[in-house]
Amino acid sequence: MAPVNNNNVQINNNENPPTKFKVTIIGSGNWGSVASKLIASNTLKLHSFHDEVKMWVFEEVLPSGEKLTDVINRTNENVKYLPGIKLGCNVVADPDLENAVRDANMLVFVTPHQFMEGICKRLVGKIRSDAQAISLIKGMEVKREGPCMISTLVSQQLGVNCCVLMGANIANEIAVEKFSEATVGYRENREIADKWVQLFSTPYFMVSPCQDVEGVELCGTLKNVVAIAAGFVDGLDMGNNTKAAIMRIGLREMKAFSKLLFSSVKDNTFFESCGVADLITTCLGGRNRKCAEAFAKNGGKRSFDELEAEMLQGQKLQGVSTAKEVYEVLKHKGWLEMFPLFTTVHEICTGRLPPSAIVEYSEHAPKFPLVGGPTAFP
Amino acid sequence: MAPVNNNNVQINNNENPPTKFKVTIIGSGNWGSVASKLIASNTLKLHSFHDEVKMWVFEEVLPSGEKLTDVINRTNENVKYLPGIKLGCNVVADPDLENAVRDANMLVFVTPHQFMEGICKRLVGKIRSDAQAISLIKGMEVKREGPCMISTLVSQQLGVNCCVLMGANIANEIAVEKFSEATVGYRENREIADKWVQLFSTPYFMVSPCQDVEGVELCGTLKNVVAIAAGFVDGLDMGNNTKAAIMRIGLREMKAFSKLLFSSVKDNTFFESCGVADLITTCLGGRNRKCAEAFAKNGGKRSFDELEAEMLQGQKLQGVSTAKEVYEVLKHKGWLEMFPLFTTVHEICTGRLPPSAIVEYSEHAPKFPLVGGPTAFP
Repeated sequence: MAPVNNNNVQINNNENPPTKFKVTIIGSGNWGSVASKLIASNTLKLHSFHDEVKMWVFEEVLPSGEKLTDVINRTNENVKYLPGIKLGCNVVADPDLENAVRDANMLVFVTPHQFMEGICKRLVGKIRSDAQAISLIKGMEVKREGPCMISTLVSQQLGVNCCVLMGANIANEIAVEKFSEATVGYRENREIADKWVQLFSTPYFMVSPCQDVEGVELCGTLKNVVAIAAGFVDGLDMGNNTKAAIMRIGLREMKAFSKLLFSSVKDNTFFESCGVADLITTCLGGRNRKCAEAFAKNGGKRSFDELEAEMLQGQKLQGVSTAKEVYEVLKHKGWLEMFPLFTTVHEICTGRLPPSAIVEYSEHAPKFPLVGGPTAFP
Repeated sequence: MAPVNNNNVQINNNENPPTKFKVTIIGSGNWGSVASKLIASNTLKLHSFHDEVKMWVFEEVLPSGEKLTDVINRTNENVKYLPGIKLGCNVVADPDLENAVRDANMLVFVTPHQFMEGICKRLVGKIRSDAQAISLIKGMEVKREGPCMISTLVSQQLGVNCCVLMGANIANEIAVEKFSEATVGYRENREIADKWVQLFSTPYFMVSPCQDVEGVELCGTLKNVVAIAAGFVDGLDMGNNTKAAIMRIGLREMKAFSKLLFSSVKDNTFFESCGVADLITTCLGGRNRKCAEAFAKNGGKRSFDELEAEMLQGQKLQGVSTAKEVYEVLKHKGWLEMFPLFTTVHEICTGRLPPSAIVEYSEHAPKFPLVGGPTAFP
């Protein structure tokens, strides 16, 4: 058995010589389809990967009467969730989850987060023992006893190592090859992280590894609370100055909250694409920002449920529910006063405070240890 | 002589009991006038300050035939540079620089940066020996032998300690009391920093101290280079995703450049208002962004000089000249390849590359140590 050389990527160090990596993507929505396009372009080029990329598709019958998997395999296009974009002729859609994962040693999870528990249960005992996993799923729940990280769920349920990929990633913009970045969060094994980086990187999609899986994954969820705050500022016509201040305070609270929950979380993670860049994208565009803007313009008189139904065509708003979950944690831990922005967002969403409170909480500043420069807080 | 107690602010520790602080503002443009409003509201409230705030005004004769200082002192309004806003009845405009500073022990510098050398020369020997200074001036020059920090200029020429105040500060938005933040950068004396924080803070203007005077001051200049890049992205219609990525890479280069120039510069400074917030404001609005957008829309065929003359009504664009200065430093030090964004901005401004190069440099990624996560670079 060859010793592992730190300068060489050598993941498979059992008796057999390293085999080629075989990738399966679990999920085929908008982001999953774009991920399959990125990955499929790389497996064709890189010798350490099998060309073929399997994509598990939740089967649907299209209005034409055809099955979605059949259409994807015939046209190389996900006509329902990413119309007009070729995924690559080496992407094979498979409606059978167990069959799709059977031979794979690299599993990419990219389903809506509420399906993950069920999917993991179905996969127990069905995946290869040497499999590696990565989650592209943003928006885990933050329960009172702590956040339910998707990476932890996968690791615990399936007994495999699980990285995460997060960043400023609007799927439709990456689909048309506009320049973007992403962050791969990993726990210990840098070689595995580098393998994922290699699998996703293209000239227009620049991926960097970051040894902080919790920090990277938390960014993807907490940014939605800040986007609600940024939307309020937009609705109140407060201008760019105020919006920048609110985004900065939000980033600071994301960092402080993550570090209080996981002492391993690093400051520098928030400078990565998963941190500041995803926050900027989400606060400039994004559905959380948009609905919060409408909420503030209506002086809080129309509920988020009503605005969501009217504005989002069935898509769901995560910021409001995440704000509630974060509030519960803060209350439970006695941290409410340390997080004026997170707290205020929830209190505005529930109607206890008017939208204008988002820029008024600073009057209580002396109470908050957050004020007082970088040394005053973790 | 009482010992200095670290828990108490006690700056004046000579034979006499602590005297009241007397503030003079040197400069009376748009931002200087807003600063005088903030300060004047606080000196009236805080017992440790004299009520009266002197403001040195470069004398001008208005179209009405009146002198600007006379109008300010009669109406409490800077009718030329901040019309419609009351500065406070305790602001006294003085056209005589030496007279204005004579009794002051807190000096606030807020002039255009090109006047500072001349002003410092005139002030040698004319200020109190126990005076403290702060600079609100953004955009010092970055000469090949290193940046000419305004705080260093003041310290060296006048022999006084000089802090800086930077942040996401659009003067007209603060003038109408929209919520904003700022950072006071200081070198060693936290008591002095706290005094400046106290002097500027209001419920709508939240100021935090940060022990990193160079880092804070460099942010105020380098962000303009990133704003040029962000403007190119806007002009190319690349969308929010790409813009966020470019802003993030820009922030990373600001940090890396500052740390290479001054080993004392801290990562956390870039999370403060002077860092990420000022960058966001400048890349959302701002004249650098605006002209760069027009430059890219015209495919680089109309020069920045031409666009500046047409679009800015006599105001000057700092990003283009700062990009040139930064480029000279990078070239001189052999760092060009480590700063792909800064380098590319200059090469686009000078016509050596097309505007679209701003999102293409990533193809050279393997060459750059900046790629590879937070551990790969200072």
